[in-house]
Amino acid sequence: MSMKNVMVAQSGGPTVAINASLAGVVDAVIKSDQYDTVYGSIYGILGILEDHILNLSEQTDTIPDFIDILKVSPAMYLGSCRYKLPDYEDDDATYAFLFKQFERYQIGAFFYIGGNDSMDTVSKLSHYGRQIGSDIRILGIPKTIDNDLCITDHTPGYGSAAKYVASTILEIAHDTFIYSVKSVTIVEIMGRDAGWLTAATALARNSYNNAPHLIYFPEVPFDPKQFITDVKQQLSKRNNVIIAVSEGIRDQAGHYISASTAKNDQFGHSQLSGTGKCLEYLIKESINVKVRSIEVNVLQRCAAHLSSLTDLEEAFALGRQAVNRAAAGETKCMLTLHRESNMPYEVSIRSADIDQIANEAKSIPREWINEAGNDITPTLYEYMAPLIAGEPDVHYQNGLPVYLPVDHLDTVPT
Amino acid sequence: MSMKNVMVAQSGGPTVAINASLAGVVDAVIKSDQYDTVYGSIYGILGILEDHILNLSEQTDTIPDFIDILKVSPAMYLGSCRYKLPDYEDDDATYAFLFKQFERYQIGAFFYIGGNDSMDTVSKLSHYGRQIGSDIRILGIPKTIDNDLCITDHTPGYGSAAKYVASTILEIAHDTFIYSVKSVTIVEIMGRDAGWLTAATALARNSYNNAPHLIYFPEVPFDPKQFITDVKQQLSKRNNVIIAVSEGIRDQAGHYISASTAKNDQFGHSQLSGTGKCLEYLIKESINVKVRSIEVNVLQRCAAHLSSLTDLEEAFALGRQAVNRAAAGETKCMLTLHRESNMPYEVSIRSADIDQIANEAKSIPREWINEAGNDITPTLYEYMAPLIAGEPDVHYQNGLPVYLPVDHLDTVPT
Repeated sequence: MSMKNVMVAQSGGPTVAINASLAGVVDAVIKSDQYDTVYGSIYGILGILEDHILNLSEQTDTIPDFIDILKVSPAMYLGSCRYKLPDYEDDDATYAFLFKQFERYQIGAFFYIGGNDSMDTVSKLSHYGRQIGSDIRILGIPKTIDNDLCITDHTPGYGSAAKYVASTILEIAHDTFIYSVKSVTIVEIMGRDAGWLTAATALARNSYNNAPHLIYFPEVPFDPKQFITDVKQQLSKRNNVIIAVSEGIRDQAGHYISASTAKNDQFGHSQLSGTGKCLEYLIKESINVKVRSIEVNVLQRCAAHLSSLTDLEEAFALGRQAVNRAAAGETKCMLTLHRESNMPYEVSIRSADIDQIANEAKSIPREWINEAGNDITPTLYEYMAPLIAGEPDVHYQNGLPVYLPVDHLDTVPT
Repeated sequence: MSMKNVMVAQSGGPTVAINASLAGVVDAVIKSDQYDTVYGSIYGILGILEDHILNLSEQTDTIPDFIDILKVSPAMYLGSCRYKLPDYEDDDATYAFLFKQFERYQIGAFFYIGGNDSMDTVSKLSHYGRQIGSDIRILGIPKTIDNDLCITDHTPGYGSAAKYVASTILEIAHDTFIYSVKSVTIVEIMGRDAGWLTAATALARNSYNNAPHLIYFPEVPFDPKQFITDVKQQLSKRNNVIIAVSEGIRDQAGHYISASTAKNDQFGHSQLSGTGKCLEYLIKESINVKVRSIEVNVLQRCAAHLSSLTDLEEAFALGRQAVNRAAAGETKCMLTLHRESNMPYEVSIRSADIDQIANEAKSIPREWINEAGNDITPTLYEYMAPLIAGEPDVHYQNGLPVYLPVDHLDTVPT
C-alpha cells in the first residue's frame, strides 16, 4: 500500500502565526515516513470543493528557504474563507464531494488551521467521517488574535498581536509625552467579545511609562459616568492620559457603546462610529481637554515584522505535532497548549475533543480584571508577559521585510 | 577664556529620526575641543524661557549607552512645543530674556531641530542676534515626516516614515489577498499639503504585489467622478484593490475632500470625517463592492522599531555637522542634504541661509506624478527608494523595544 497524503487549509481572519503552523505541518510531512505529499487547499475548504489545490511539497523543492520564510510571513499563505458547512443531515452532498476529493488526492489526514468557526468545520467533518466509516484523521490547529478558544491555555496569533499592541502603546506614549499640555489619547483595540488583546496593552508599562492609564474590557459593563470620573482622576495626576479600549465594550443592557453614535451619513448609509471615537465624544462633552482617538488598524493581526518568537515557535510546534498525532491515530480533536509553568515559562502540547471547543468562547475571568473594572490584575499580567517574548529573524530587502510571495492568490491581473 | 557651552532643543511634531539628530549634537559636543557642556531645553524653546534645562553631558555619563539608545528612540527626548516667537519689532522682551539665558548658560551655539515653524524661530533668533551684535551661532537642523522643506534634497524623519507606510501597505496587502471576493481597501496617509509620504506607499510593490493600485496626492485636484472610474477599472483587473490617499487631497476649488462629509455628531460637535472614510462613502455610493478604509495612525511618525538606518544615520550626521559648522563660524542657516548620486546612493551635507527656507513648503513636482494623477513616476520611485534602506539595531527586552526613558517629561504622577 502506498503512503497517504496530507491536506491542509487555513480559515477565518489572519494572524501573524497561522503561516507558522502551516510551516510546521509542511515540515513534519516532508520529514515523515508515514505521509507522502502535503497539499494546500486554496481559500479554506472552498479550495477542496473547487479543486483549487497547491502542492506544497513541490514548493519546498522549488522555493529556497520555503519553510523558514513561510514561518515569518503574515496573513494566510493559502488564503481564507468565511464558509460555514451546512449540517450534513440537511445536505450531505457537500460532504460526499469533500470526501471524494480526499479519496482522489489519497488523503490520510486533513488539518484545518483556524478559530472558532473553523473548529465547527472540523467537528462536522469528523462526525460525518465517523458516520461513513472513513479513517481519515481530521484535526484542528488553533489560531486567533482574540485568544478566545476554550481549553487551550492561549491561542497562536495572540502573542504576536499582544506584542504589537503593547509596542504600539509604548510608541504612542513616547509620541504623547512630548507636549506639556493636558491631553487624553484613546486607543481602540480589536476584540468584539473578549478583552484579551486589549489587556495586553498593559505590557507596555515599564520604569518610565505607566500607560495605558485606564483599560476597558467587553467583560465589564461600561458606565459612561464612571468613565468620566476615571478620566478626571487620571488627569489630576498627569498631563497625558492614555486609555486602551476594546472595540467590544457594552453598556449594562448589553448594547455596544459604538452603536450609540451610529448615524446615517450623507448617502443614507448607517455608519457605525468606532468605539474609540465614541469615547472621544464622551470626553469632549464633559471635560475641557485635548482629546483624540486612534483605531489600531489591521496591523495588529498582520504586522509580521514585529511578531513574537514564542508565538511563532508554538504555532510551528503545533503544526508539527498535528501531523505526528494524526499519524499516531488521533482525530476529531484540536491541539491545545497547556501551561506547565510561568517562571520559567513552559508549555506542553495536548489535544482535546473537538466538541468541547467548537462554538464556545473564552472571556477573561472577572477576577483577572481589577475591582473597578478599568485595569488588569497582576495575575493577568503574569499570564500574558511570556507570550510576547523573543523576536524572529525577519529579513529585509530594499528596506522592506521579505515575505513569501502569494502569486497563487488573486494578487495580480489575470 | 573658558570654553562655551551648547544649547539644543526640538520642536514641532515627532519623527523617528529627530532623536538621532539630538544624539549627533551630543556626540559632537562631548568629542569637541571647542565646546564644553551640551544643555537640552525641555519642551522646545519654552524650556529656555521657563529655565527647564537638562544637562545632556551629565546624562551621557550616568546613562549607559545613552547616545546609541537615543539614536533609535522615537518622538522627542527633550519634548516639543508649538510656540511661535513674536516679531521682535513688536516684543523684544522675550528675545532679550532668551539671550540673557544664553549668557547665563554661557552658550556659544544654539541648535533647533524641527520643521518649517522651527526654522521660523531660527530665522527670528538669528536676525535678533545679529541686531544686538551677539556672536552666538544659531543653526537649524531639519526634520519632518512630510519631506516638505525647501533646498534640502529630503528631510530626516521622512525615510523612516516612508519605510513604515510602505511596510504597512505590504502587510495590509497580505491581509487583503486572503479572500477571493472583490474588495477595495483605502489607506489614508498623513500629509496635509504634500504627498511625499503617500507616494512612498509605492515602495511596497514587488514581484507579487502591485499594491497600492491607485495613489492620490494633494498636488493633484481630486475629481470624484474620475476616482470612481479609476476604481472600476482596477476592479476589472483584480479582486483586491488597495488605494493610498493623502489626508490632504482637495477638489478643483481647493476644498479638502475630508471636509465634504463634515457633520454634527450627537453632542453638536462638528465632526470632520477622515479623507479615507470619505472615499469609502464615495465608493459605497457608486459601486457594489466590499470596501473599508484604514487610517494609518501616529505610528507612521513614531514607529522606531521599524526605522530606516539610512534616515537615522543622516539625521545623526546632520547633528554632528551642525556642531562642527557652528564651531567653524557658521550661523543663521539650516543644514541641508544634497544628493550626489542615486546609484550608488550618496549624499553630502551642506547648509543654506535660513531665510531661504523658513515658511516655504516643497510639494512633489507635477512631472513626478503620472499624467492621470493617480500614481507616481519612475523618477519619484528612484528618488524615494534609497531613503528607506537599512535597519538599525533595535534591542528588545521582555518582548518590547528598548527606548530611552523620558522621566524628565511629564510622564509620571507628580
